[in-house]
Amino acid sequence: MIDAAPLPVVRTVADLRAIVRDWKRQGLSVGMVPTMGALHEGHLTLVREAARRADRVVASNFVNPTQFAAHEDLGKYPRQQEDDARLLAGAGCHLMFAPSADEMYPEGFATTVAVAGPALGLEGDFRPQMFGGVALVVTKLFNQVQPDVAVFGEKDYQQLMVVRRFVRDLDLPVEIVGAPTERDGWGLALSSRNAYLSETELETARRLNGILAEAGVHASSGRPLPGVEREAYAALLKAGFDRVDYVAIRHAEDLTPFRNDIVDAPARILAAAWLGKTRLIDNMAV
Amino acid sequence: MIDAAPLPVVRTVADLRAIVRDWKRQGLSVGMVPTMGALHEGHLTLVREAARRADRVVASNFVNPTQFAAHEDLGKYPRQQEDDARLLAGAGCHLMFAPSADEMYPEGFATTVAVAGPALGLEGDFRPQMFGGVALVVTKLFNQVQPDVAVFGEKDYQQLMVVRRFVRDLDLPVEIVGAPTERDGWGLALSSRNAYLSETELETARRLNGILAEAGVHASSGRPLPGVEREAYAALLKAGFDRVDYVAIRHAEDLTPFRNDIVDAPARILAAAWLGKTRLIDNMAV
Repeated sequence: MIDAAPLPVVRTVADLRAIVRDWKRQGLSVGMVPTMGALHEGHLTLVREAARRADRVVASNFVNPTQFAAHEDLGKYPRQQEDDARLLAGAGCHLMFAPSADEMYPEGFATTVAVAGPALGLEGDFRPQMFGGVALVVTKLFNQVQPDVAVFGEKDYQQLMVVRRFVRDLDLPVEIVGAPTERDGWGLALSSRNAYLSETELETARRLNGILAEAGVHASSGRPLPGVEREAYAALLKAGFDRVDYVAIRHAEDLTPFRNDIVDAPARILAAAWLGKTRLIDNMAV
Repeated sequence: MIDAAPLPVVRTVADLRAIVRDWKRQGLSVGMVPTMGALHEGHLTLVREAARRADRVVASNFVNPTQFAAHEDLGKYPRQQEDDARLLAGAGCHLMFAPSADEMYPEGFATTVAVAGPALGLEGDFRPQMFGGVALVVTKLFNQVQPDVAVFGEKDYQQLMVVRRFVRDLDLPVEIVGAPTERDGWGLALSSRNAYLSETELETARRLNGILAEAGVHASSGRPLPGVEREAYAALLKAGFDRVDYVAIRHAEDLTPFRNDIVDAPARILAAAWLGKTRLIDNMAV
């Protein structure tokens, strides 16, 4: 039931619930951080935030197949659960929940969750499976853990908005907290996928946040958005990105476009771009 | 907040949660019966069953628009909340939750739940919106009330199987109990839609259960199912039903057809048929 790891690890919903039930009987509040493992400082910031807001913290560690398309990197997504457990323990996590795919999606599984609104466009256009897969697994995780609060990174900003949306729509009794993106010394957003980058690709990757920040300055100074977005797009290709899926400046709350092509309310700039076979995303407030 | 009714009635999720939270603080268990109102003895049996299994019982009373298609009877579905509250109080219910459509589906609502498996075929063929709508509203109601146990009637047998499926798939922490169908003195399954029937239609309606029971006997005696289903279909038309959507004998657990056309495991016979503009359903164990 409990592995001899630096952190208690449970692999079944029954074992998870037994521990959480015991905490709740003691009147302890529960925080949660859903992860797909391959943990880095970005995840640990989320765990520390959850530990500030709740008495006990559960991190899930599950590479969720339903949010990957057939051609995507599910198979090679990095897995290192022992390192993960050590890192989580150091950040103040109390329990790692690392179920198998069979535990999460047993034979006969037949339910899906779909989100429109903030899930439409941007990542939704390029990874049509993703947000449905995220909504399904996060709904399951919340019902399994029943946390009082859950922390998500702003690194996946659209995902954060999607989670807020279906949590409100399905009346899931959990508070959703967004935590700022952790970056390296050059401003590159921390991501498990950075591990795929070569030295040269890494240098280019570190230009992404600066190009978005500059476009954000132009946008907030009142320049029309189509021009700002086009320039940022061209700057990313010039910096060495092989392909740009999108650069977009949107309403911060629901990710809808600005009707007058001018920023006149809280905004967010979001981008996705490729280096070789690695797809990076980033975003920031405008 | 609380109407001056024989039963406390709340209309917002916030008011509902305040009362349920108070019960849970006192260590009381909570049972739930989701209804669309227009209550009859069938519903009250479910409430009594919930009261046997939990310290407090919430009945929801909400005609859910997402499970009706545009051409269906949403607009004329009977509404009589004051009578409903009185009946519920008499059956041992402690709280009626009667939200508005805006409280359940506010502007910006963007989430759907879909179920395959037991939702496919039968009612799913003839009312393609229904089970998605049921899955969505019941998921919401469970997250709003957070009951320990919920009781559903076997009258809507396929719905009961669908609820069991998505509750398991989404890990909703609630026990689902199915309660036997209540029938009038002639065996007609009680239904809010019976109120639509004329005297003559009512006489025909009362033949439905007998025809299904007879087909069930033939099926369990080993006769090939296609012939048994065809005979029952013809018998319904002969009895005066204007149209028959289906008569089907299926595996009791997941509603899949019998591969060898012979009943060799627990089975259920299910039917839907029309009298004028009224559609009736019924089912029973084979």
